[in-house]
Amino acid sequence: MEEKTDLSQFSLQIPNTTKKRIIIIGGGFGGLNFIKNIPEDNFQLVLFDKHNYHTFLPLLYQVATSALEAPSICDAHRRIYGKRGDVYFRAVKVLGVNPDKKEVETFIGSLPYDFLIIASGSVPNYFGNENLMQHSFPLKSLPNATALRTKIYQNLERATLTRSFEERKRLLNFVIVGGGPTGVEVAGALSELRKFVLPLDYKDLDFKQMRIKIIEGANQVLVGFSPHASKNALATLKKMGVELMFNTLVADFDGTTITYKNGETETCGMLIWGAGVSGALINGLDKNLIKGGKYVVDPYCRIKGHDTIFAIGDIALFEDPRYERGLPGVAQPAIQQGKYTAKLISKLVKKGKDLNNLTEEKPFKYLDKGSLATIGRNKAVADLPGNLKFSGFIAWALWATVHLLYLNGLRNRLFTFLSWMMNYFNYQNKVRLIINPILKPDDTVEKEFAKVNETGD
Amino acid sequence: MEEKTDLSQFSLQIPNTTKKRIIIIGGGFGGLNFIKNIPEDNFQLVLFDKHNYHTFLPLLYQVATSALEAPSICDAHRRIYGKRGDVYFRAVKVLGVNPDKKEVETFIGSLPYDFLIIASGSVPNYFGNENLMQHSFPLKSLPNATALRTKIYQNLERATLTRSFEERKRLLNFVIVGGGPTGVEVAGALSELRKFVLPLDYKDLDFKQMRIKIIEGANQVLVGFSPHASKNALATLKKMGVELMFNTLVADFDGTTITYKNGETETCGMLIWGAGVSGALINGLDKNLIKGGKYVVDPYCRIKGHDTIFAIGDIALFEDPRYERGLPGVAQPAIQQGKYTAKLISKLVKKGKDLNNLTEEKPFKYLDKGSLATIGRNKAVADLPGNLKFSGFIAWALWATVHLLYLNGLRNRLFTFLSWMMNYFNYQNKVRLIINPILKPDDTVEKEFAKVNETGD
Repeated sequence: MEEKTDLSQFSLQIPNTTKKRIIIIGGGFGGLNFIKNIPEDNFQLVLFDKHNYHTFLPLLYQVATSALEAPSICDAHRRIYGKRGDVYFRAVKVLGVNPDKKEVETFIGSLPYDFLIIASGSVPNYFGNENLMQHSFPLKSLPNATALRTKIYQNLERATLTRSFEERKRLLNFVIVGGGPTGVEVAGALSELRKFVLPLDYKDLDFKQMRIKIIEGANQVLVGFSPHASKNALATLKKMGVELMFNTLVADFDGTTITYKNGETETCGMLIWGAGVSGALINGLDKNLIKGGKYVVDPYCRIKGHDTIFAIGDIALFEDPRYERGLPGVAQPAIQQGKYTAKLISKLVKKGKDLNNLTEEKPFKYLDKGSLATIGRNKAVADLPGNLKFSGFIAWALWATVHLLYLNGLRNRLFTFLSWMMNYFNYQNKVRLIINPILKPDDTVEKEFAKVNETGD
Repeated sequence: MEEKTDLSQFSLQIPNTTKKRIIIIGGGFGGLNFIKNIPEDNFQLVLFDKHNYHTFLPLLYQVATSALEAPSICDAHRRIYGKRGDVYFRAVKVLGVNPDKKEVETFIGSLPYDFLIIASGSVPNYFGNENLMQHSFPLKSLPNATALRTKIYQNLERATLTRSFEERKRLLNFVIVGGGPTGVEVAGALSELRKFVLPLDYKDLDFKQMRIKIIEGANQVLVGFSPHASKNALATLKKMGVELMFNTLVADFDGTTITYKNGETETCGMLIWGAGVSGALINGLDKNLIKGGKYVVDPYCRIKGHDTIFAIGDIALFEDPRYERGLPGVAQPAIQQGKYTAKLISKLVKKGKDLNNLTEEKPFKYLDKGSLATIGRNKAVADLPGNLKFSGFIAWALWATVHLLYLNGLRNRLFTFLSWMMNYFNYQNKVRLIINPILKPDDTVEKEFAKVNETGD
């Protein structure tokens, strides 16, 4: 059938409406909380997302380290919004925005909007280095997490088969770039795998050879947390046998050899990228509106100069005297901004307010509920409002409770809770699966090994 | 590093031993039950499997239809055998067997055996048709199941976007080849998705257009079951709106258009291959030993003429007067043969018996525990020994109980049970996820759509 290669047969198929149309780009924490808080049936809502599901990003590292099933931390958009008649989900790439026409452009047509919510989140920032982008393992999406998990176990299988001491050492060297929450959490989880889970699985490997190393540009982990949390995390990581290199930057990586900025090199089995992120920018908006890879927004979360375009969450630079570089790139600002903008737009439309003049409206105010990071069983750090600082079991229990509460859907909460209980008592980390092996195009050995998976799959 | 393309640096790394070495090819029902029943520490066991996990094949269709998380029906080999010191798992492709040298050959070296257990299972049989192999969706492995699930939801997303009535009709036409248990179970599950789950998700589609069709070469479904079960399943499928074409064979499929043997054609969104399977044969054994794509075995499950090579499960043709074409290709013969051969070998070695003369030993006798197939909620058929025949709720409850009991691992049982409870009461089928989109190389539209997934994953 020739027609299947013909894009013109497709269109967005959004019905015309007399209601105001709000287009939301991205169904993460920002988009989800926007839609959940906009009153039903007052608007036509169109959600664009490259994934057909919402991902609970704070637990990605647990999927990557085989503690949780991937579906436990995500939820299909159509399931979440299934009971609403006013939400149209489209898994279509947004090519750009035309703010003059007030249209969003896709490869199968444009769609006009009354309000646009840009909640596209962030992507890994490799600072323009193509090699790093091609070879390292980021942790910003569910496919990222399953790829990371797969690579860990592919490397371990391969390590059991090599005759070369050097190659085995390389395969068992896990290097994590970035000592933020992602880096710390992945390092902690790998360290627990090494201690409790892997020695029984891979009796033919010597886990004294397995190294876990965090490379951090600053001189501490958890920059942005309190000094108490930062120091506690560092001490815990060291106790768990995680190596740390501070004031160090990665210059290049070819898949096996890391080159540091100071010229030193080392080989590793995989490079996990937990360093910088950058906003997932949309084409068509003035470059002057971008600062540090994010859209600068006004106190009402609108992109400066555009009174119907809002940016929320990781993609937005919301200036706040408490934070040097805008609000932190975590779930809470996105959640709160999603709720705020939903209520604001709803009110503005209801009262027919002049969008050029919002001075009567209450600006967005970020409520800092504190910061949490977990390092392992009974090991976490918590900076709570009112200068309350916890570490150890209390912080860990708090972390677990908060994450369960914020997970979307009863089944996800139940399955995650049960997985944690089993991991806690049995060190299960059961999902030690290589379902879709990763094949790098330049690696002939990997391809030879992968032939084991070629038949019938 | 150049060395990474050098296969000579790898070897199987199996320690030398004075114990008898048993090589097991395949960790499915046969291999798993063999290893679990061979006494610990009396042998050195080497397991080769292309997957690093055991798959509970009878529930693959539930992963394919988004009822169960993929990890709930599989279990890593290394986890299963972690507490034993005598099992060596190797995720390495077996290239062949050399029965004269008593060696198994892999691309990184050969390994001698004292006993060889071929438990390699079966692969889809496309009767040599390359097009069918390339374009249809089989259901014989976990990657098959997640691919099938992904394709269902990709087609539905695409159907919401097409302007063409014909194309939408095509995308919503699900054709299943084969009316055996797999075909019946997939058709039933799709029918329940259509009735209970999808209409809320895809309010923009008219599910009266969605068709589910079984193509069967014989004149009934569930060939091999009792006439009672067969007729009951047919009536249930019809009531659920599944179409059936009997005495019909598929000649070709190009990805969109099916050509039947009688020359008729029709278009469909996906062709699900639940028809013939063939043994996953190993190179190096005499072709005369193969009949109907399987190894002919003697009453002790040995491949005829080879007194140290056993074949069990789907790969074996075990003649039994009760069955026209050997034992059925389901879990029970593999489980029972795994247990039988483990006990037989253990006994033979212990007593130092002459392998050429086993006439004193009890031959394998298949205990038919009955056949079960489920069609939907409260809808199943059961043929039990003693001419007991059930259908409806009782058969369904029996089916559910038996499958839970045979699942490997507590966590899998618990998660599957909970998923079923939630699906039962809430019609959840929650795993409606497109995690790794399927891109056929000849489909430019699919690639355009897939660009939504290209950034950052």
